[in-house]
Amino acid sequence: MNTQDLYEEYKERMHRIADVKYSMALLQWDQETYLPPKGAGIRGQQIATLSEIAHRLFIDEKLGKILNELMDKNELGENEKRNIELTLEDYTKNKKYSSAFVRKLTEQVNRSFHAWMEARKQNSFPIFEKELAPLTELKKQETDILGYSHHPYNALLNEFEKGSTVQLIDKTFADLLPSLKTILEKIKNKPQVNDSFLKQYFPKQQQWDWGMYLLKQLHFDFEAGRQDISEHPFTINFANSDVRITTRINENDFSSMTWSCIHEAGHALYEQGLPADQYGLPLGEAASLGVHESQSRLWENNIGRSLLFWKHYFPELQKKFPEQLAKLSVEEFYKGINKVEPSLIRTEADELTYHFHVLVRYELEKKLIDGSILTKDIPAFWNEHYETYLGVKIPDDKNGCLQDVHWSHGSFGYFSTYSLGSFFAAQFYSAIEQSVTDLNNGIEKGNTVPVLQWLRKSVHLHGRKYTSGELCERMTGKALDTRFFLDYLLQKYSLIYTL
Amino acid sequence: MNTQDLYEEYKERMHRIADVKYSMALLQWDQETYLPPKGAGIRGQQIATLSEIAHRLFIDEKLGKILNELMDKNELGENEKRNIELTLEDYTKNKKYSSAFVRKLTEQVNRSFHAWMEARKQNSFPIFEKELAPLTELKKQETDILGYSHHPYNALLNEFEKGSTVQLIDKTFADLLPSLKTILEKIKNKPQVNDSFLKQYFPKQQQWDWGMYLLKQLHFDFEAGRQDISEHPFTINFANSDVRITTRINENDFSSMTWSCIHEAGHALYEQGLPADQYGLPLGEAASLGVHESQSRLWENNIGRSLLFWKHYFPELQKKFPEQLAKLSVEEFYKGINKVEPSLIRTEADELTYHFHVLVRYELEKKLIDGSILTKDIPAFWNEHYETYLGVKIPDDKNGCLQDVHWSHGSFGYFSTYSLGSFFAAQFYSAIEQSVTDLNNGIEKGNTVPVLQWLRKSVHLHGRKYTSGELCERMTGKALDTRFFLDYLLQKYSLIYTL
Repeated sequence: MNTQDLYEEYKERMHRIADVKYSMALLQWDQETYLPPKGAGIRGQQIATLSEIAHRLFIDEKLGKILNELMDKNELGENEKRNIELTLEDYTKNKKYSSAFVRKLTEQVNRSFHAWMEARKQNSFPIFEKELAPLTELKKQETDILGYSHHPYNALLNEFEKGSTVQLIDKTFADLLPSLKTILEKIKNKPQVNDSFLKQYFPKQQQWDWGMYLLKQLHFDFEAGRQDISEHPFTINFANSDVRITTRINENDFSSMTWSCIHEAGHALYEQGLPADQYGLPLGEAASLGVHESQSRLWENNIGRSLLFWKHYFPELQKKFPEQLAKLSVEEFYKGINKVEPSLIRTEADELTYHFHVLVRYELEKKLIDGSILTKDIPAFWNEHYETYLGVKIPDDKNGCLQDVHWSHGSFGYFSTYSLGSFFAAQFYSAIEQSVTDLNNGIEKGNTVPVLQWLRKSVHLHGRKYTSGELCERMTGKALDTRFFLDYLLQKYSLIYTL
Repeated sequence: MNTQDLYEEYKERMHRIADVKYSMALLQWDQETYLPPKGAGIRGQQIATLSEIAHRLFIDEKLGKILNELMDKNELGENEKRNIELTLEDYTKNKKYSSAFVRKLTEQVNRSFHAWMEARKQNSFPIFEKELAPLTELKKQETDILGYSHHPYNALLNEFEKGSTVQLIDKTFADLLPSLKTILEKIKNKPQVNDSFLKQYFPKQQQWDWGMYLLKQLHFDFEAGRQDISEHPFTINFANSDVRITTRINENDFSSMTWSCIHEAGHALYEQGLPADQYGLPLGEAASLGVHESQSRLWENNIGRSLLFWKHYFPELQKKFPEQLAKLSVEEFYKGINKVEPSLIRTEADELTYHFHVLVRYELEKKLIDGSILTKDIPAFWNEHYETYLGVKIPDDKNGCLQDVHWSHGSFGYFSTYSLGSFFAAQFYSAIEQSVTDLNNGIEKGNTVPVLQWLRKSVHLHGRKYTSGELCERMTGKALDTRFFLDYLLQKYSLIYTL
């Protein structure tokens, strides 16, 4: 077969695998949005079957043969070559898993997810723990299947952020957190800002309309996506022409929905901007979770919590909620939405204390995976570390170790990418500030198109072509450096709290 | 392998196939409810891939071997034996299709569905015809693949109603339609009933709430299902624990939503009542489309358009829509919802003229499949026959041959099961009237549980164990006889129109 035909055969196989994977993703989306409760059991089985089929299709020896043959061809273009390299990497990794293990893991994830839902309902960790314990055992087995050096947790970290290690993340946190602690202490000694206006009654339908308006303003393409309601906001895609986000509405807390919309919009703009002709291929996928999170954070925080942005949108917001907000100035609003205060819930944390929430989970997972603690020890570990790092007392499991869905999905090694996302976002945004002329002027007028264009060109269109590290170098001229994030916070809080 | 292990292996394989098929069904449900427009292309490909995978899994030689081995075992129970017989029948039939043909057909169905949507938007049959022509060619090929005696259309009829033939359906219509014509003529010469109260303004949200209330009253299990909005109401299931129905709301026509809710509830109660332990096996599936339709019709018409039913529910309805209905008597309401009048749209037709709508489609499909007309001839054929049978002039394609989704799905041979459904329903309901004591008294008080219990026991729990003919014999002591339907209509219209 000539190279072009062989590459077509490769693409054809990858398309079929993607079809199955994205079908599975739709089943998952439905599970968290519309699934009736009695459908949960069979749904888990259906997802497990698709997952097993996708895995079987991917580890087909014939695909391996095609990939190895294509690796030796010189006629391939740069992007084709990169697709083959990355697919071969994935193939080699996937070959390590037996289909039986994949099925077992998927089924256990499903049981754990439903146990987590039930545990939250009853506000009782032990209900979740019964299913989390065997899931954690499977994840430990997975580290052996994948292989690792130094620390078993590295195997899992690497799944979400290629090249990420315990050593690197330990160092990143160690570099940054003392400075964050210092800022936090300084803030504590200053007059606190008022955010009580956020806790007024904001009716559900009006919040929904406002969120939809914002999504349109940010150029989320509703012809190629939609928004629905779920317990925990998320973004999922079934092709770059079908990218779905979810949100939740708290009628007594305005911030919950607004910044979840902007956050998920950031994820979704990335997915909608991936190259359509690379469907099912590595260059049609996001670079890494850290890069994914950099997109959501950049929109949510660097733009969506800036004074410039709200200079344009706050008058719009006041029109929608005159009773609640007419008397407020944009400066007061800006300060309120950037209030720093140690709290219980990660997704509602401010930009500073957020990273202590991540640290607790990171430390906990490390120990869980290397066996120094067991799943039953989680609440004690959690509660103790929240007190140490944030000085808060955990009142119950729902506001403590049951708050996040991730473990129920078996996603150990995920949380650190949230912090990486913030750090990348600060560094990327600094590059945008330098290269886009008239940027601030535009944002102040509600025009974020130049930012989107810059991200499309520099990040979205490349798919997985570059690692997060390579992307960072290409865009900013240097490796990831938490100094950008620190500078960003210092500048923001110096003004707000007159540090 | 011993018989029990072999049967387990058979079940395991059938479960996997069902998982894939029901996943595909979820993709289809989503396509008609929530899919963003740009997602349509890839969605078609994803559905085609799952359809091909399900087909490949089903025609696996190993499954054939297991089935043949199990056929020779005497230790199997009656139900197990029946599952094996029916699966072998399906297997033998499916073996006739190549995977390539299955994929081609699924892809063409997808193109046709989107062409139909577009054609409706533009109110222009030729837009649909471009895709319907190749689809019809594939369906003709399918008749050769499946094989048939006497008439190629028999191959397709048999797909929806086992044992159904052109000869039988010709005879059924020939027996009944002259009588229906006579009744229609008589009605025309009587004072017409007033149904103008149905055409008032009924706000969307209140209609939705009313529909949801009715579904609950009819014991649709919302823990094992849900209702959504779509262009064309339908029922779909992904297990008997997840049965979904859709409806549409016309704010200026009350009847559109109410009886679509009751109709789909009838389908859904059947699916929710199928035995859960038979998931993926023939005994976990509906007996036939005719039987399925008998369930929806029985609830929609025999119960849902009866005076007894509305004696209980009309006061409830008046409470919800006092402005529109307070001055109406239940007798006037009853007459209005049973008004007979030749019209353009099948789904809105009364119980009498409905069967002429079916007849046009049946005659048309017969000729399309045997080649005596071509797809381009459809509008002319349609319009001419509507004039002959119903005396109505078709103003445009949207109100004519573009009104139904079925052809876009490649579902030729389907429509006649709608009429069979009404005929079965009348015969079944007559048996219920004879065997359930105090039936009318209960319905007049809003208690339809005895009807549901009777259907559960006599129809739902058997799955595909019996053909529609066998079920009919078991329940009513005789083969399908359109006399029951005719008696039912005569009784109803004699009172309403004093014939």
